[in-house]
Amino acid sequence: MASHGYVDWQFGGSDAAEKAAKASLGTYSSEIFSMCDLQGKPILPPLSEEAETSHTVEKAVVQAVLCGRGNAYAPSIGLSVAKRAMADYLNRDLDNKLTGDDVYMTVGCKQAIELAVKILAKPTANILLPRPGFPWDMVHSIYKELEVRRYEFIPERDFEIDFDSVREMTDENTFAIFIINPHNPNGNYYTKAHLEQLATLARELGIMVISDEVYRWTVFGSNPFVPMGKFSSIVPVVTVGSISKGWIVPGWRTGWLALHDINGDFKTTKVLKAAKEYLEISSKPPTVIQAAIPTILEKTPQEFFDKRQSFLKDKVEFGYSKLKHIPTLTCYMKPEACTFLWTKLDPLDFVDIEDDHDFCRKLAKEENLVLLPGIAFGQKNWLRHSIDMETPRLEDAFVRLKSFCERHSIIVEANGVN
Amino acid sequence: MASHGYVDWQFGGSDAAEKAAKASLGTYSSEIFSMCDLQGKPILPPLSEEAETSHTVEKAVVQAVLCGRGNAYAPSIGLSVAKRAMADYLNRDLDNKLTGDDVYMTVGCKQAIELAVKILAKPTANILLPRPGFPWDMVHSIYKELEVRRYEFIPERDFEIDFDSVREMTDENTFAIFIINPHNPNGNYYTKAHLEQLATLARELGIMVISDEVYRWTVFGSNPFVPMGKFSSIVPVVTVGSISKGWIVPGWRTGWLALHDINGDFKTTKVLKAAKEYLEISSKPPTVIQAAIPTILEKTPQEFFDKRQSFLKDKVEFGYSKLKHIPTLTCYMKPEACTFLWTKLDPLDFVDIEDDHDFCRKLAKEENLVLLPGIAFGQKNWLRHSIDMETPRLEDAFVRLKSFCERHSIIVEANGVN
Repeated sequence: MASHGYVDWQFGGSDAAEKAAKASLGTYSSEIFSMCDLQGKPILPPLSEEAETSHTVEKAVVQAVLCGRGNAYAPSIGLSVAKRAMADYLNRDLDNKLTGDDVYMTVGCKQAIELAVKILAKPTANILLPRPGFPWDMVHSIYKELEVRRYEFIPERDFEIDFDSVREMTDENTFAIFIINPHNPNGNYYTKAHLEQLATLARELGIMVISDEVYRWTVFGSNPFVPMGKFSSIVPVVTVGSISKGWIVPGWRTGWLALHDINGDFKTTKVLKAAKEYLEISSKPPTVIQAAIPTILEKTPQEFFDKRQSFLKDKVEFGYSKLKHIPTLTCYMKPEACTFLWTKLDPLDFVDIEDDHDFCRKLAKEENLVLLPGIAFGQKNWLRHSIDMETPRLEDAFVRLKSFCERHSIIVEANGVN
Repeated sequence: MASHGYVDWQFGGSDAAEKAAKASLGTYSSEIFSMCDLQGKPILPPLSEEAETSHTVEKAVVQAVLCGRGNAYAPSIGLSVAKRAMADYLNRDLDNKLTGDDVYMTVGCKQAIELAVKILAKPTANILLPRPGFPWDMVHSIYKELEVRRYEFIPERDFEIDFDSVREMTDENTFAIFIINPHNPNGNYYTKAHLEQLATLARELGIMVISDEVYRWTVFGSNPFVPMGKFSSIVPVVTVGSISKGWIVPGWRTGWLALHDINGDFKTTKVLKAAKEYLEISSKPPTVIQAAIPTILEKTPQEFFDKRQSFLKDKVEFGYSKLKHIPTLTCYMKPEACTFLWTKLDPLDFVDIEDDHDFCRKLAKEENLVLLPGIAFGQKNWLRHSIDMETPRLEDAFVRLKSFCERHSIIVEANGVN
C-alpha cells in the first residue's frame, strides 16, 4: 500500500474563511501571547487558569449526566424544560411575558447571533452593528450574509449610542440594529430611558432590535440592568445570550435566542418561520447542559453573582485608579459592567508605536503583558485590558503598562506621579 | 409603552433554509409521529426513553465538571488532551500514525461533515455523496456550497459501492467522494479489499476520500471494522465521527475530524489551511465533554460495546426473520452494523400506497408504528425500520407491520405463513 508516484490531485482548500480567521479574537490573542517570553516574568493575564462556577450549577449538570437526562438528541428548537425555564427567568423583568415557545436554545451566544443574522439574510439588506462591538471575525462572517453598517457611540457621554449615526446609517434596506448590552468592550449598560428612545427610533425607522445580553450578569453599576425585551410593545425585539459569562462557563456552549413579539410582527414578516427552519438544520447545544438549565437558572444562589460583581467592581476601581497615572491612555468611563477596561491611544503620543496592534505586540514582547487591540473589535487605536485577576497581579500589570508607556512616550513625565 | 398604530416593518425572514428544513429527519419523524393516535396502542418505537451510556463515561464527565476542567473556552481546534486521546485511539488500527495535531474536535459528527464540505467549497467543484446516505436536509445544505452528485450501491452484492457509478459521476471538477462506513441506512460495512479498491480508484481519479465512521462502534458482523485511514498512503483521507452512536450520547455533541495525510497532500493543496481557518471561526464542542474524552476512549470497558453489539445483532436477527413473512417488503441483506433494517417497497404491490412517504404516514395512522421513508435519506420507496428496542416491542412492531402490509397489498397471501 505504498504511494505510487506523483498524483495531480483535483481538490484544493477553500480560502473563504481566510480573512475571518485572521481577524478572530483567538488569532489576535495567540499572536500576541506568542510574543511573550516564556522564560521571562510571569505572563499576565495568566495563560490558563481553571474557571470556577457555582457548585449548584456543577451539581445540576452532574445530576443530568448521572440520570441520563441529557444523552439523547434534543429537539432542534431546544429541550422544552430548558426553554420554559429560560422564559420564566427572562420574564422576571418583563411585563410582556414569554412562553417556552418564544425561546430557542443555541450553541452559545455565538450561534444565537449567527441565527439572528441568517434569519434576516438577503443580498440587498443591511444591518447596523456597533463600532466597537462584535469580534471582527464575526463581522466578516456576517458580511457574507448581508451588508454590515456600523453605528457609533459617544465616549464623552458614557458611551451612549449615537442616535444620529444610527439614523444616518439606516435606509429602506435596513432590517435591524444589533446592540450589545451590557457592552463589551465599552463596559457600560444602557438606562431604561436610553433603551426606550432606541425602541422608539427603531419603530420610526421600521427596523427590529437585536440585543446581545450575554453580559447581563456581570453588572456592578448603580442602575439596575434593563433588558431590551421590556420595549417589545414598541418594537419587535430579539434577545440573545448564554450562561457563559454569568456563570463563568463559556466552554459549556449553551445559549438562547428569544423572540419578543407581542404584536405578532415576527409571524407576519416570516421571521418566526425562518428561525424555526434554521434551527431545524443547525447543530444543537449539548443536551446534558440543557437538561440542567432549570436548576442553573432557578437555584444558583444570589451570593454567587454578588461575590463575582463585587470582585469585578473592585478590580475595575483599582485598574481605573492606576490608569490615571498613564496619561498616554485615555479611559473615558469607569466601566460598570463586563470584565475589561477600554482605553484610547494616540500613536502621535508615542515615539515608535504605529497603532493599537503594534502597541500590543511590543507590550507583550517587552513586558509579558497581553492586551487586545481595539481593531479586534473593529475600532483602531483602542485597547482592551482584562481586569479579571487578583489584585497583586493586576497591580503588577499596571506597573508594567506604565513603565512601557513611559518608555515609548514622546513626553517625559514632568510631575513624576507614580 | 403601548403600540402606536401600524408600522410597515422593513425586515422579513429569509427563506433560504426552507427546503432543507422540510427535508430534515426531525421534520419527517415529527410529521409521522404526529399521525399516531396518542389514545391508541403504544407508539413504537417509544417516543422518548432515557438512553443509558457506560457508567465510566458518566464518571469521566462528572469529574471534569467537578474539577472545573471544562469551564473555559477550548481552543478553536479542540482541547489538546482530547485531540491526543482521539489520535491515540484511531492509531490502534493504523500503520500510519496520527498525532494530536491531525485531529480536530467538532460539534458532533454533523459539524465535522459540514467542515469537510466548507473546506472544499468552490462554485465549480462537485463532490460525490452516497445514495442513500446523509439525511436529505444535509444534502440540501451541502448543495449551497458545491454541486452534489450521487453514486449508487449494489444491493444484490451486500450494498457494495458501485464503482462504475463512481467513475461515471467523476469529472475534472470532482474534489472528493464521501463514504459512510458502517453505512446507515444500508446496514453494511466495507471489507479491507473493497476499501483498498476504493482508495486506488480515488487515486486514479485524483479525488480524496472522506469517510463518516460514526457507526464504527455498532458493528456485529463477522469481519473486523477497517477504518479508511488505513489507506492514506494511497489516497488522502479525512475521517469524521463522534461519540454519539458508540456511547449512545448523541446529545453530548462531541465529534472529530481527522486528516490522514502522510504524503503532505493536504498541506500542498491548502486543505489543512482551510480546515484550521474554518475551525477558528466555528462554534466549538462543549469543553466539559472534551475534557472527559481521554477517559471515555481509554477506560470504557469492552463489555459495554460487546453487550450493545450483541443486543443489536439479536434484534436484527429477530426483525430480519419476521420480514421474511412480509413479501411486499424486500430486505436485500441482513444488516451487520448500525441499528436499522432497510427495505425496499414497490407501490405497485399495494392497492393504495403512493410511495414510501405515503406508506409511513398511513402506517403511523393505522398502527401507531413509525418507520422513516427512504426519501429522508435520498432514496425513494425504501423504508428504515429501527430495531433498537426490547424483543416484545419489536415483535409487536412486526405484527403491526405485517398486518398493515397484508391489508394494503394487492395480493392476498396464498400460503398464510405467519
